Amino acid sequence: MSNLLKFPNFLWAFVVCVVLSCELSCGYETGGGIVEGKLNVHLVPHSHDDVGWLKTVDQYFIGSNNSIQVACVENVLDSVVVSLLRDPNRKFIFAEMAFFRRWWLIQSGEIQAQVKKLVSAGRLEFVNGGWCMHDEAATHYIDMIDQTTLGHDLIKSYFNVTPRAGWQIDPFGHSAVQAYLLGAELGFDSIHFARIDYQDRAKRKDDKSLEVVWRGSKTFGSSSQIFTNVFPRHYSPPDCFNFEVSGVFEPIQDEPLLFDMNVKKRVNDFIDAALSQANVTRTNHIMWTMGEDFKYQYAESWFKQMDKLIHYVNMDGRVNALYSTPSIYTDAKLASNISWPLKTHDYFPYANNEDSYWTGYFTSRPALKGYIRSLSGYYLASRQLEYLVGRRNKGPNTFSLGDALGIAQHHDAVSGTAKQHTTNDYQKRLAIGALEAEAVVNLAISCLTSSTSNCTISTSTFSQCPLLNISFCPPVENIPSGKSLVIVAYNSLGWNRTDIIRIPVKDANFVTEAYLGISPKDVPKYWLLFQASVPPFGWNTYFVTQTPGTGGYVSVVDTPQNDTIEIGPGSLEMLFSLQSGQLKRITNSRTGIDLPIQQSYLWYASRAGIQPSGAYIFHPEDSPPVIVSRSVPIKVIRGPLVEEVHQQFNPWIYQVTRLYKDKEHAEFEFIIGPIPTDDGVGKEVITRITADMATNKVFYTDSNGRDFLKRVRDYREDWPLQVTQPVAGNYYPLNLGMFTTDNKTELSVLVDRATGGASINDGEMEIMFHRRMLYDDHRGVGEALDEFVCNKTACQGLVIRGNYYMSIDHVGSGSKWRRTTGQEIYSPLLLAFTHENQEDYKASHSTRSTTMDPNYILPPNVALITLQELEDESVLLRLAHLYEAGEDVDFSTLVKVELKKMFAAKTIKMIKETSLSANQDKSTIKKLPWKVVGGNGSEPPTVRGGPVDPSALVVELGPMEIRTFILQV
Amino acid sequence: MSNLLKFPNFLWAFVVCVVLSCELSCGYETGGGIVEGKLNVHLVPHSHDDVGWLKTVDQYFIGSNNSIQVACVENVLDSVVVSLLRDPNRKFIFAEMAFFRRWWLIQSGEIQAQVKKLVSAGRLEFVNGGWCMHDEAATHYIDMIDQTTLGHDLIKSYFNVTPRAGWQIDPFGHSAVQAYLLGAELGFDSIHFARIDYQDRAKRKDDKSLEVVWRGSKTFGSSSQIFTNVFPRHYSPPDCFNFEVSGVFEPIQDEPLLFDMNVKKRVNDFIDAALSQANVTRTNHIMWTMGEDFKYQYAESWFKQMDKLIHYVNMDGRVNALYSTPSIYTDAKLASNISWPLKTHDYFPYANNEDSYWTGYFTSRPALKGYIRSLSGYYLASRQLEYLVGRRNKGPNTFSLGDALGIAQHHDAVSGTAKQHTTNDYQKRLAIGALEAEAVVNLAISCLTSSTSNCTISTSTFSQCPLLNISFCPPVENIPSGKSLVIVAYNSLGWNRTDIIRIPVKDANFVTEAYLGISPKDVPKYWLLFQASVPPFGWNTYFVTQTPGTGGYVSVVDTPQNDTIEIGPGSLEMLFSLQSGQLKRITNSRTGIDLPIQQSYLWYASRAGIQPSGAYIFHPEDSPPVIVSRSVPIKVIRGPLVEEVHQQFNPWIYQVTRLYKDKEHAEFEFIIGPIPTDDGVGKEVITRITADMATNKVFYTDSNGRDFLKRVRDYREDWPLQVTQPVAGNYYPLNLGMFTTDNKTELSVLVDRATGGASINDGEMEIMFHRRMLYDDHRGVGEALDEFVCNKTACQGLVIRGNYYMSIDHVGSGSKWRRTTGQEIYSPLLLAFTHENQEDYKASHSTRSTTMDPNYILPPNVALITLQELEDESVLLRLAHLYEAGEDVDFSTLVKVELKKMFAAKTIKMIKETSLSANQDKSTIKKLPWKVVGGNGSEPPTVRGGPVDPSALVVELGPMEIRTFILQV
Repeated sequence: MSNLLKFPNFLWAFVVCVVLSCELSCGYETGGGIVEGKLNVHLVPHSHDDVGWLKTVDQYFIGSNNSIQVACVENVLDSVVVSLLRDPNRKFIFAEMAFFRRWWLIQSGEIQAQVKKLVSAGRLEFVNGGWCMHDEAATHYIDMIDQTTLGHDLIKSYFNVTPRAGWQIDPFGHSAVQAYLLGAELGFDSIHFARIDYQDRAKRKDDKSLEVVWRGSKTFGSSSQIFTNVFPRHYSPPDCFNFEVSGVFEPIQDEPLLFDMNVKKRVNDFIDAALSQANVTRTNHIMWTMGEDFKYQYAESWFKQMDKLIHYVNMDGRVNALYSTPSIYTDAKLASNISWPLKTHDYFPYANNEDSYWTGYFTSRPALKGYIRSLSGYYLASRQLEYLVGRRNKGPNTFSLGDALGIAQHHDAVSGTAKQHTTNDYQKRLAIGALEAEAVVNLAISCLTSSTSNCTISTSTFSQCPLLNISFCPPVENIPSGKSLVIVAYNSLGWNRTDIIRIPVKDANFVTEAYLGISPKDVPKYWLLFQASVPPFGWNTYFVTQTPGTGGYVSVVDTPQNDTIEIGPGSLEMLFSLQSGQLKRITNSRTGIDLPIQQSYLWYASRAGIQPSGAYIFHPEDSPPVIVSRSVPIKVIRGPLVEEVHQQFNPWIYQVTRLYKDKEHAEFEFIIGPIPTDDGVGKEVITRITADMATNKVFYTDSNGRDFLKRVRDYREDWPLQVTQPVAGNYYPLNLGMFTTDNKTELSVLVDRATGGASINDGEMEIMFHRRMLYDDHRGVGEALDEFVCNKTACQGLVIRGNYYMSIDHVGSGSKWRRTTGQEIYSPLLLAFTHENQEDYKASHSTRSTTMDPNYILPPNVALITLQELEDESVLLRLAHLYEAGEDVDFSTLVKVELKKMFAAKTIKMIKETSLSANQDKSTIKKLPWKVVGGNGSEPPTVRGGPVDPSALVVELGPMEIRTFILQV
Repeated sequence: MSNLLKFPNFLWAFVVCVVLSCELSCGYETGGGIVEGKLNVHLVPHSHDDVGWLKTVDQYFIGSNNSIQVACVENVLDSVVVSLLRDPNRKFIFAEMAFFRRWWLIQSGEIQAQVKKLVSAGRLEFVNGGWCMHDEAATHYIDMIDQTTLGHDLIKSYFNVTPRAGWQIDPFGHSAVQAYLLGAELGFDSIHFARIDYQDRAKRKDDKSLEVVWRGSKTFGSSSQIFTNVFPRHYSPPDCFNFEVSGVFEPIQDEPLLFDMNVKKRVNDFIDAALSQANVTRTNHIMWTMGEDFKYQYAESWFKQMDKLIHYVNMDGRVNALYSTPSIYTDAKLASNISWPLKTHDYFPYANNEDSYWTGYFTSRPALKGYIRSLSGYYLASRQLEYLVGRRNKGPNTFSLGDALGIAQHHDAVSGTAKQHTTNDYQKRLAIGALEAEAVVNLAISCLTSSTSNCTISTSTFSQCPLLNISFCPPVENIPSGKSLVIVAYNSLGWNRTDIIRIPVKDANFVTEAYLGISPKDVPKYWLLFQASVPPFGWNTYFVTQTPGTGGYVSVVDTPQNDTIEIGPGSLEMLFSLQSGQLKRITNSRTGIDLPIQQSYLWYASRAGIQPSGAYIFHPEDSPPVIVSRSVPIKVIRGPLVEEVHQQFNPWIYQVTRLYKDKEHAEFEFIIGPIPTDDGVGKEVITRITADMATNKVFYTDSNGRDFLKRVRDYREDWPLQVTQPVAGNYYPLNLGMFTTDNKTELSVLVDRATGGASINDGEMEIMFHRRMLYDDHRGVGEALDEFVCNKTACQGLVIRGNYYMSIDHVGSGSKWRRTTGQEIYSPLLLAFTHENQEDYKASHSTRSTTMDPNYILPPNVALITLQELEDESVLLRLAHLYEAGEDVDFSTLVKVELKKMFAAKTIKMIKETSLSANQDKSTIKKLPWKVVGGNGSEPPTVRGGPVDPSALVVELGPMEIRTFILQV
């Protein structure tokens, strides 16, 4: 076939037609494909391009800051395209759409057209296809879905293709949610990665079980399984087959006119490496990952060598080499028609040797992790609001926040393992994106609350307080005389919601001060607290008016008098020792649970030496963690809605415990830092909760905020664990929280951001909140994780403020609290402020409303996780069942969402169910019929909702089901 | 215009048509060319690709051995071609045809076709265009011509173009012969280079005289002048404009979607660098050499940045940037129509700071230098013989020797500044080439001497003894009974010649031993000496027959008895002290000259420390050189033809002084080494000749074996020299030799290879023969120049055997000896050996003949420097006048060569005079009309031969003239 194109004959254009076909010229036979009966070596050319790490994403793209790392993704894509065009047999895979978009937008139409041909011919294959190769420990499943959707939408719109393979080659451990949700439910046929525990790998190499069928979901079992290819070593080629232009390798010298012909030697090298890999691999297909970090700066350097290798190896004939991709490889594995080992659960934690457990990054950079999580919820809410008033083609929209969040999910971003300057860049992008989304939200709230329909305003008087968490909120403290502070609270949950709103009030002198990066050192003197009640997907309005002269604020300070003190205005009470200040027990008068319990702060001394504790690695000294204080002064503040216990544990750890009248959990707010290191010791700060419970080594942690996985201390499901790190080796990532249970009680803790947690002794749970270390841990980042904050005059170690939440429940009853409260933590009330005369405001605004049918609320086991107007004005709707099969007696059931009521004000003209990332019709996803060793067995039936009747428009959701729809409204 | 090509529609071919036109796509305006009235910054993209240095030429080509240096010329050419095809404004220059040929031969016809278009459009311009960028200090002019001709022929035959610019950017100093002969006489318009003395450069920057009109020849003056561009710094771009893919630079970020836009900053950087260069440059044209050693591994990395720079700088408008080449630049300089400073003489020696005189490499690796020189003469002779019997299309030819010699002229090859393994590679190539040329010679001698005409033999019984210099010559010692040793001596000079032939004869036990790398430690016990007389371009035959039992050899050993001893069977006599063994005086009874003289060996202690003496740098300790011995035993051997003085100066310096009956010069043969370094001191060994002459600081050294240049100790013609290195700074390269003179006598020394020499005190001349050092001198080679030789069992420092020659003449008479003897040294009698019964041989062979008219010999002031049958059966003829204008009263005159007599046996059907490298008609060379400061002045008329009448076929040659012809015979 001849692909000669026709071009307009521009007078001014010098059109060069380059014929670089290798079949015409080079003489290397590389198009033989798979050969049955031989060992097939699938060469998969790839470049692992971190979306920020040692350099920022833009520095990586254009190749600046090369003194840190020589890496330019523009070169990779430029040169790969040229090399692919040289020879029709060559292939390449690419993963990171955040980079690809940067590249694509500056290409000419001609190059775009060529690339479209390459993609459609399967020669340039997108793998993963998300915005980045997301982390799997510190990411929330909604963020994972969002960033993948962003990338898949781009691929779909540019190329009309859908990625088939998960390519998580670098993340430091692999989650259950990745396997079933971000794998099978995306429509992926396979997932490929490099990093699993060294003991696990050794065993799997022994019994050829590196490649498995992975069922990451208890609820879905085989219906969400995925073929999983764990590399025998790393994602680089076998030794001596790295052909980077600036690297050291032995090129194949096949030119008789030159000295040092080495074809025979190199063919033997190839076959040796292939046979060695075949020894640990089932079937006669092995994959060579022909790439490395930011390789293919000059792609031809690789392809030239691979052309020759394929040619001469196949000429030799002992094995067969071919250009391949993960999808071709997976098809070949399937065609082998053998049974594969079954894998359930996940691949956490990851250790690459006995002293190197990559469990530090679960907590590293808690401020970044907190910012990302809070913006994640905000992104969800702002897209709702954007949808409700109509997405603007001009003016602010939510794309840049989605872009920044997509980048931030990268496995060196939210993981906390990037260099500081790159971390700053992530935060800057998030802040820019948030600022634009704030403008969207302000406008939307102006429009929504406005009594006039057909809102066309372009400015809003509303503002928000993104720094409310550090008590910086100018509108609260600068209320013009004669006006009220108007607070609109928007509820992005589908349920009615009652919450305490806390507004800090400080001395009037602070009012006009700009935020200069100085965290307030003192807890605010006054707080305005009130209870807000907000309808689902709706808002309510509150007016704060200051009475001149007298002050209108209320606070009650209670100085305790007795031996112990009971706190709690509602059914949950906590008993503190007045002597030690320690929490003694917790009781729930409604449920009758009474649990002796302690809560304390401790720190692990970070190991220095050969394997220091660092951004990735948690490597504490062997000694037990240091208890911060055995005796803490206690200050109690009681109000009608909430009672608070304020405790300064030491000069750098402060905690407020809050019990609310209408909530059955305790809320803890901590301020930790600056962690002192002037003693030369890095410190990793935990809180430890010790309950009188016989937990028998068992605890549960969430997978990306979604499923809860059973963890057993000092134990792995897949191999007999040799315990080398009794603490670090028992840490697991938390995104939602963790719980333990004995035969009576469940003790649950929820967190407000990604972190790490463990249960080192029975009855204990510990969560790491902050880390500050003095040494790099030799995993590439080249910096100690020693965060600090500077203002104009000084720098100090980073101070972290965060929350965690605790509940006690009867066995089997905790999930209701965890699921519902988890959603509330993820999606706090969104507050917008303005100043207006109360009566004037009321006259011109709707002060309380829902955007649904006023008589409808979402079922308590369902969350709306995406509602977003797309560029083409269609609407992306994603609904999630919140409970696993069997998790809750009431809620782990099929549930219905009535879209007509949900979209009360609008008419749904069309509904189409899609894959999780909305890039293909749900019905077109084909599940590959993998066989597992021992047969597929019998599983309990999986409950999933049925097809949606376009007239009834009722969506059914089975346990854990997430259904994605495109609507025309 | 549209350059879409038409391709056959191969069924099996996937023809990809890549349209990568930048005018269509990139949007960068780079085609504006020169703008009058602005400062024009000529960006000249280049890659400096050493034909061997740290790696071998083939390793550099295919990119192997990258652990030493990441360098792959194949990548350079591959990627440059792709980048040039992307944009019609981009340009690139390339110099080294040894590399280009390797690349070209493995390209497809399609790529070759594209490259032909690039060359013909002037977008890929060849500069220099020789096989390599030859050295200018250690090269003989015949080698320079040969290697340039090889490259120019390739360029001509591939592309039908002729290079216009000399591009000697890296050689370590620049010779007069380079300027006028390898510059102007090649038809070059300009020459460009980086390295001149740091004091010279400073002054030239001050007075804007870096760019000059250079008249390198006293004889030819302005008729062989060339525009010379000395770079203000080095051949790299200004700081921060090196855009190598693996390098550290600040790319231009012009994409508003990305962070860190820096167009304005980079434009300012550019303009700052341009203005700073404009400050030291005449006219408003400056050149930026956009490249470095082995850069453009991925050319797009450079072109992308240069595209942007040109675009934005020109948009800024303060200066004008353009893609350019040396020829465009030179034309712009000419168009400026200003006068340029005049430069005569040369640019030796080169120092880059006060302690770093690059005068060590004049002598470094004397064995390599000797091998190259001896093969140079052999190459000349073997091409003569190849021509005489007809060049073979199949079977052995002289190309591979020419190829190897071409490579060996590289400025890191013959210079002795390559790594040892690369040096071994050069020697291996030379040996392979020599072996093939030996086969050519053996066959040719069989044919020529055979009585039968129409020689078609494919094997020859003749053999040669390339290791005769180390007394290894099996045919001499293995004469079958009943046969004679037949010695055919071929004379490649155009004059009758009488020489002593010396054949070593050892114990019969050695006869069958293969040469195993063991240099014989003992001087051979017996020598066979006889006088041979050979006609021009002809041969004579000698028979050696051994008388069984008695031995047929004659030797006389004379043990001296008196206080002094006189040596010399002819008119030249030498007087040695018997007490000290020292030479005392030298007399010539014919001329009456009687000169008190001493000759001794000394060594400089090599400096260690910050700037050690090394392969490049000669940096002796401040102390005077150490005299090897003040008293030497003397052994005299007298024979009828020659008298010899044998002296062991110390355990590692041996010298034989020979005086011949029929020659008026002394021949010195030295054996130096292994130089001991067990005292931790590197040593640089010289011989010093001290004569009773008032030389007044003046001495003369040759330029590439051609012109003699006047040298004045501690003085430079071009600037007031600040003397920092009184020894190293006075060394000059020798290829032919050196001489001094007072008002009566000339004392001349000729050498057998490239070396360095000086006159540190009046009446003295010294020549450096051997160097062995312990430290690298920090100029990149990364090795100490510590040569050794290993056999199967042990290694020892390199032993050097060599010759030098001395003559005393009346003032003005020395040149006859120097010129004639110089030719004899360069072209020794070529000896071929066979065994045959003397009578049988005589019956079937012509034993003595010339290939010219038997009554014709070449004039004594003319040498045939090339006679070669080309691939198309035409004949390349190059004749050289050997005397400068005014050099000799008899011979510095117009002289005629009668081609009809010279080519007596053949008919010249066509004759065409060409440029020196035979790539263009002489008549088509246009001389650019450069003006020099102070006007062009009056010069003595230049004498050149007139056009050759094709019927008379008489070639006239003026002094120093070299004329090149293509003949059809």
